[in-house]
Amino acid sequence: MAAQQHALPVTRGENFAAWYQAVIGEADLAEESGVRGCMIMRPWGYGIWQRMQELLDRRIRETGHENCYFPLFIPLSFLAKEAEHVEGFAKEMAVVTHHRLKTIDGVLQPDPDAKLEEPLIVRPTSETMIGAAFQRWIRSHRDLPLLLNQWANVVRWEMRPRLFLRTAEFLWQEGHTAHATHEEALEHTMRMLEVYRSFAEDALAMPVIAGEKPPHERFPGAESTFSIEAMMQDGKALQAGTAHYLGTHFAHAQNIRYQTERGDLAYAHTTSWGVSTRLVGGVVMTHGDDDGLRLPPMIAPRQIVLVPILRDKPEDSAVVQYCEALAAEINRGTAFGEPIRAAVDRRAGRAVDKRWSYIKRGVPVVCEVGARDMAASAVTLIRRDRARNGERIEMTTVKGDELAQTAGALLTEIQAALHAEARSRLVANISSKFATFDDLNAYFKDSTDTDAFRGWSQVAWARPEGAALEAVDAKLKALKLTIRNAPLQQESAAGRPCIFSGAPAKELVLVGRAY
Amino acid sequence: MAAQQHALPVTRGENFAAWYQAVIGEADLAEESGVRGCMIMRPWGYGIWQRMQELLDRRIRETGHENCYFPLFIPLSFLAKEAEHVEGFAKEMAVVTHHRLKTIDGVLQPDPDAKLEEPLIVRPTSETMIGAAFQRWIRSHRDLPLLLNQWANVVRWEMRPRLFLRTAEFLWQEGHTAHATHEEALEHTMRMLEVYRSFAEDALAMPVIAGEKPPHERFPGAESTFSIEAMMQDGKALQAGTAHYLGTHFAHAQNIRYQTERGDLAYAHTTSWGVSTRLVGGVVMTHGDDDGLRLPPMIAPRQIVLVPILRDKPEDSAVVQYCEALAAEINRGTAFGEPIRAAVDRRAGRAVDKRWSYIKRGVPVVCEVGARDMAASAVTLIRRDRARNGERIEMTTVKGDELAQTAGALLTEIQAALHAEARSRLVANISSKFATFDDLNAYFKDSTDTDAFRGWSQVAWARPEGAALEAVDAKLKALKLTIRNAPLQQESAAGRPCIFSGAPAKELVLVGRAY
Repeated sequence: MAAQQHALPVTRGENFAAWYQAVIGEADLAEESGVRGCMIMRPWGYGIWQRMQELLDRRIRETGHENCYFPLFIPLSFLAKEAEHVEGFAKEMAVVTHHRLKTIDGVLQPDPDAKLEEPLIVRPTSETMIGAAFQRWIRSHRDLPLLLNQWANVVRWEMRPRLFLRTAEFLWQEGHTAHATHEEALEHTMRMLEVYRSFAEDALAMPVIAGEKPPHERFPGAESTFSIEAMMQDGKALQAGTAHYLGTHFAHAQNIRYQTERGDLAYAHTTSWGVSTRLVGGVVMTHGDDDGLRLPPMIAPRQIVLVPILRDKPEDSAVVQYCEALAAEINRGTAFGEPIRAAVDRRAGRAVDKRWSYIKRGVPVVCEVGARDMAASAVTLIRRDRARNGERIEMTTVKGDELAQTAGALLTEIQAALHAEARSRLVANISSKFATFDDLNAYFKDSTDTDAFRGWSQVAWARPEGAALEAVDAKLKALKLTIRNAPLQQESAAGRPCIFSGAPAKELVLVGRAY
Repeated sequence: MAAQQHALPVTRGENFAAWYQAVIGEADLAEESGVRGCMIMRPWGYGIWQRMQELLDRRIRETGHENCYFPLFIPLSFLAKEAEHVEGFAKEMAVVTHHRLKTIDGVLQPDPDAKLEEPLIVRPTSETMIGAAFQRWIRSHRDLPLLLNQWANVVRWEMRPRLFLRTAEFLWQEGHTAHATHEEALEHTMRMLEVYRSFAEDALAMPVIAGEKPPHERFPGAESTFSIEAMMQDGKALQAGTAHYLGTHFAHAQNIRYQTERGDLAYAHTTSWGVSTRLVGGVVMTHGDDDGLRLPPMIAPRQIVLVPILRDKPEDSAVVQYCEALAAEINRGTAFGEPIRAAVDRRAGRAVDKRWSYIKRGVPVVCEVGARDMAASAVTLIRRDRARNGERIEMTTVKGDELAQTAGALLTEIQAALHAEARSRLVANISSKFATFDDLNAYFKDSTDTDAFRGWSQVAWARPEGAALEAVDAKLKALKLTIRNAPLQQESAAGRPCIFSGAPAKELVLVGRAY
């Protein structure tokens, strides 16, 4: 292994898409299931998702939401109520038409006698189902705001599925709220966008830009859509979370009304917002290197793994005991306000193989412990975030006591280092130098390979509508670009011309290639 | 409210089925969704399920399992591989046949051009899907045992749905394991049955009888099926969890083989086991009374609620502050090894209405706090497990300090009291007095009302097979009875005659009516 350049069969530079697949395979995150577009999340990949769930769920509860659970199936008629919404989703849904199988002429098939009177849609999202409940539950202004969240699986048929990033079935949380006024609903939408932003930055160490989507990229049926956008190591954007202010569209479609303090009836203003298992893909492409995954400690199912070096000798059991005692001591400490998660790998097998398996899985701290380490009350430690010094693996010897005392600080440092590294890349690769579309065109047009790193551009535009917006969209699409969002935090665009029309610009938007 | 006999519109004695519905409605646990057989779990009901998940998940991890996630959809061909299994489920599955909707002649419908080549089944359980993965993952005896679990939604079409007890979609965990030998797999099946038994008794305060199902009640494709059976307050049995030893049936159907230490190939022995949201229904029917739900503190989303008595006066804020401080103090304590979950209800509204809402929801300890209580540094406390003294609500005054110091012990006492009460009922209502089928017949035949309390009988039988077993089943079915299980812990049946055939008995089985 020492002679090898890196642990993966392909590097980011050689082929980013193949590298992404390799990380997922070698880290045992997930695999294809044999069902088109549906993946199997293996324990390590699912464990990362569970950590994300725990940390985000806490934030969602702290902002006043309660968890609940709505049905998997949506009757066709529910969906048909909100025309724009159904139009947006109609092209990619799983439709249940029968409720029984039967063997006919020796072939197992849907029983023609068990055809449903009304087809059921496997939820692509639950606005329509939850809206119908809101209609029943909301009577008075005293019932507002109504703040709900659910963790669930949803299905959107995908023609070009990709593990974590675009799967037919995915896991997510979807928040749904109802409010008395436009202002409150919009404010709440922004609050949840901020929850996502801070969660991505703090928990995933994944820097993002929060902003508003342009009109043609809105959620079907939304008044406005906001997103957090993360920059992957190939320079593409990953839309990592969205929050929608739905206005009274769904309230009108589903008759969600409340009695105001004055006694008259008014339509409620609703919001919805979600993040999904796509975030796991985002973490891979933000932090992974050519040796595999690097996990921010906050979401690592195991933060520290101790690998006893076993030699089939009597002293093996003493080494294992030393490791167990040390892990227990480490686990009495905390990191990020939670008990540290250290474990000992007692399984049979060569220590060097285990080391590489944990490096590929992205365990933040991997310790090897041989008889000599034990004799010195020490361990040999690899910090995954900076495992390499050129071709060499960087190993340091640390006293066990010291590791136990400083483990929390070490994990915090690793979390911060990963964030800083990704933050620098994001900042360095947003270019503001393009004043005209020709400039933009010149920069992007010669890169037919969508994997070539080009970063994002921040450009001024006049926020066109209708046909003018469609023309802008078409121009960008020809370069495989899209407008990601208009960052919430931006300098004034006043006095600058729109790069598409030359008209006075209204705001700055981020343009880039995207997943 | 004082003049009223009880908080629910119907009592257990009047109509147990209507009472069950009333508890669920009045406690805001769940409601019908408008989708046949699919329920909406409201925050309080879902919160109870989440508590169950947390507690059971810990036990499942502690027994060496890892969580993962497999697809919602199963291709028809996967399912068709295990004939007995598909036969058992074929009658009740949701079948996806299309992947797109289209508006044709103004009507939104499945797009005929988007018919799937192979229909997909919404998983009724995942043995076939997980078996296919086992086939890929298991190569050597070193890969065994393979111990996995997933938390997921599953769908089984139900003709007579009932909230929590029988719903088309339900939430559950399904454990799936593979082992080298028959002995290990069977031992593991029993281990998980014991996890379920102790979880039901300890966490849900729901006494159960663990035992083996008779052959005709086995899971489709299982070698043997074990269950825990709980006695509801109408004397019926609720199958509350099952564990299956699947032998090598699925391994043969899916070619799950491993290389033994000797180097030859052998089929793996697999197990599966699950519990579901049905447990919430079991808790309702085990502990509920005519005032609503009574929740065992371990699974109560909130264990203690403080209700400040507000009078729209300036001193209100002091009362609220007193409550907040007390709740914070209580929450620094622990019960069952976890932080106590106490909360203050600060919402507008009459304290007496809130009191009854918490009584109906089953909050273990409800405290009312008025200005007078505050002046005395006290609270007025209702223990939900013994809220009544005849028509009166039993309230005691307790010093705030004392409550904070003893809250953990109080919750532990309530948990134990609920368990003891249910345990007494179970023990008292298993009759062993029927020596012949005529006796059994005489006892059950005159109760045409299936809700009339009859309890269970423990009878001796010769464990017949084939046609003889079918005859026994038919005889029992005529009395609306089924064999629940053969308890693991039972006295010898030696020397006793089978009550069905008179032949020498082999074991004792429990007979009862069931959900």
